[in-house]
Parts: sequence; C-alpha cells; structure tokens
Amino acid sequence: VFILNNRILTISRQFGSGGRTIGKEVASILGVPCYDQELIELFAKESGFSENMVAELDEHSAKRKLFSDRANQARQDVYLQRALWVAQEKAILKLAQQGPCVIVGRCAGHILQDANCLRTYIHAEESLRAKRIVEVYGETGEDPLQRIRDKDKRRKEYYQRYTGKKCGDAANFHIALDSGSLGIDTCVNILAHLF
Amino acid sequence: VFILNNRILTISRQFGSGGRTIGKEVASILGVPCYDQELIELFAKESGFSENMVAELDEHSAKRKLFSDRANQARQDVYLQRALWVAQEKAILKLAQQGPCVIVGRCAGHILQDANCLRTYIHAEESLRAKRIVEVYGETGEDPLQRIRDKDKRRKEYYQRYTGKKCGDAANFHIALDSGSLGIDTCVNILAHLF
Repeated sequence: VFILNNRILTISRQFGSGGRTIGKEVASILGVPCYDQELIELFAKESGFSENMVAELDEHSAKRKLFSDRANQARQDVYLQRALWVAQEKAILKLAQQGPCVIVGRCAGHILQDANCLRTYIHAEESLRAKRIVEVYGETGEDPLQRIRDKDKRRKEYYQRYTGKKCGDAANFHIALDSGSLGIDTCVNILAHLF
Repeated sequence: VFILNNRILTISRQFGSGGRTIGKEVASILGVPCYDQELIELFAKESGFSENMVAELDEHSAKRKLFSDRANQARQDVYLQRALWVAQEKAILKLAQQGPCVIVGRCAGHILQDANCLRTYIHAEESLRAKRIVEVYGETGEDPLQRIRDKDKRRKEYYQRYTGKKCGDAANFHIALDSGSLGIDTCVNILAHLF
C-alpha cells in the first residue's frame, strides 16, 4: 500500500463540465500546483515518448493508423498504450510524492486510490456541456452535442479499460458534483474547503 | 414540468451509509421536516394501503408469498407494486408542495427531478457500512456484510425498475458524498450549506 503524507486532490471530469477550470481555481486558492497538460509532458519526457506521440496515442489511439499493416498495427497499439499507461502511472505517483497538488484527469484518482487523496468527479448535463465547449474551445464545424457524445464514449472506454471500474459511478469518488446545476464557483468553494 | 417554489433536499443512500442520520441532522439544522418512515405512513393512508402491507410489499416484495398460487401471486405482486409506486409518487409530490423539507429514500430525487430540489447520494465502502449497521441496528445473527450485500441488491433492483436509471450513477445527483471517508459531520455541513 502506497501512503502519502501530502494532500492531493484528483479531479475526474466529463468533457465540457468545467472540471479543469475548477481544478485550476482550487489550486490557485490553495497555492498548490495543478497538473493537466503539464502532466502529459512530464510523463512523456520520463518515459521516452515524444510529446506528439503521447498526444496522438492517448484517448484517440483507437482511431489512429500509425502502421500500414492492420493486424500489426493493432498489436503495436496495444503495446504502446500499455507502455503509455505505465509511464503515466509512474509520473502521477512521482508528482503526488512531490507535495500537495491538484491533478485533473488521467485516471489519477484510480492510480492514487491507496494514497491520502481526495477523489472528485465533476459532471453536468450534456446540453450545458455542449454550450460550454463552444464558449471555451470555439466552434469546429461539428455539432457540439456530437462532440460531447464522441468524447464521452472515448473517455468511458479509456477509463473502464484501465481501471476496471464503471465510469461515472459515485462509489469511485469521495465527492461528485454536478457543476451545471451547482455552478462552477460553488464547486470550487466546496473542494477548496474540503482540501 | 412540475415547478416548486420550495426548497427540497432529497437523499438517496446506501444501507448503512448514515444517509438517514445525515438527512435528520440537516433538517434539524435548517428547521425543516425530514420524511422517512413518516412518508411511508402518509402515502399508505392516502392510498388505502395498510401500513403493514406497505412495509411488506416494499423493497422485499419479490420475496413475499402473499397468495397461494404462484402465477397468480406474481401478477398480483406486479399490480400491487405499481399501485404502491403511484401512491408513493403522489405522497412525495404532496409533501414537496407543503414546504421545504428533507426526503430520505423512496426514489424521491427521481420523482422530483423537475422540481426545485437538491438531489444527493450518500455512499460508503461496504466494510464501513457493515460495521455501522451493527452499531445502529444491532446484530441479527446474519453476517453484516451479507446483510449489506442483500440490501444493496434489493435497493438496486428497486431503483432501476422504477427509475430506469443506473443505481449509484453520479449523473443522477447534484452531489454524491462518501460518508465513510468524509465523515457524517462533513456531509451534514456541506448539505446544510448548499441548502
């Protein structure tokens, strides 16, 4: 069992729920670092994966065609994904040992399940999330609701493959918040208070 | 769409999680009524079901043998359960219209999903819940962990049959709290503050 003396806040979140924003705001209030894209870069460097390759392989990996032969490609994908997962686990454990922090995404709550961390989940109704992604990330030509559903599907597959747990199950978290109904500020206040 | 001007707190909870205690304490802090057993009595009287019959039919209904002929019994059970559900819906809507209150269990969050209510879920690890039910309800001769698992199974079936939703899914609630890790007092404080 891996025990930490530090306090870590992990945030698992639905796309467009504002989970990353909430993480950054809580971290800012508490004066601790928030790891998100930084985390990808760190584990990429640690494991020898180039940043681009990590970004490509990650959640979208099933759709990528990196190799010409299809059967070979599938085997390589599985191998690379597992290597990526191991590198990511190592990076998250290392970050968690460096001191109190907020970690958004990357199944960090699962990886740190035996550590002294507060595991949180941020979700919201898909119509509210569709509106938010257009505001935050802009239009892409694709229907925002379809972008939400595609991303939800990929994250669900990723989460379940690597954790063996049901995605969005309240039992996986100490606290789960509906940011659409409660509002981002209320979520930030509750988490900063608990941390 | 059914709109309330009152504030209602609904608590869905795992057996032994302390959800009922949390509901009663929040209601006490806020000076509003908490409906639990009272609710059964009320809808029983409203619908003409006797209190004993309601208690028997409720979550345990699948196990009861009220009629001698098995096929006939199954049909009667389905009929009575549906009638009970309708009576319960009516009672919860009526209670919700009477003023601010806390309602524990009975799928009230689902029934009041279009109303101005805060839907909460209280859960905890099964080992902690097994310990708690012995403290609160006493020994029964049956293994506490087995009591927890049997009750979880019945509640899950009941919830899914009547709401069509996955039991324990964070998306069904505005806030879901792990009372085992956070502690009952922290849960009470967060909910009283939000309400």
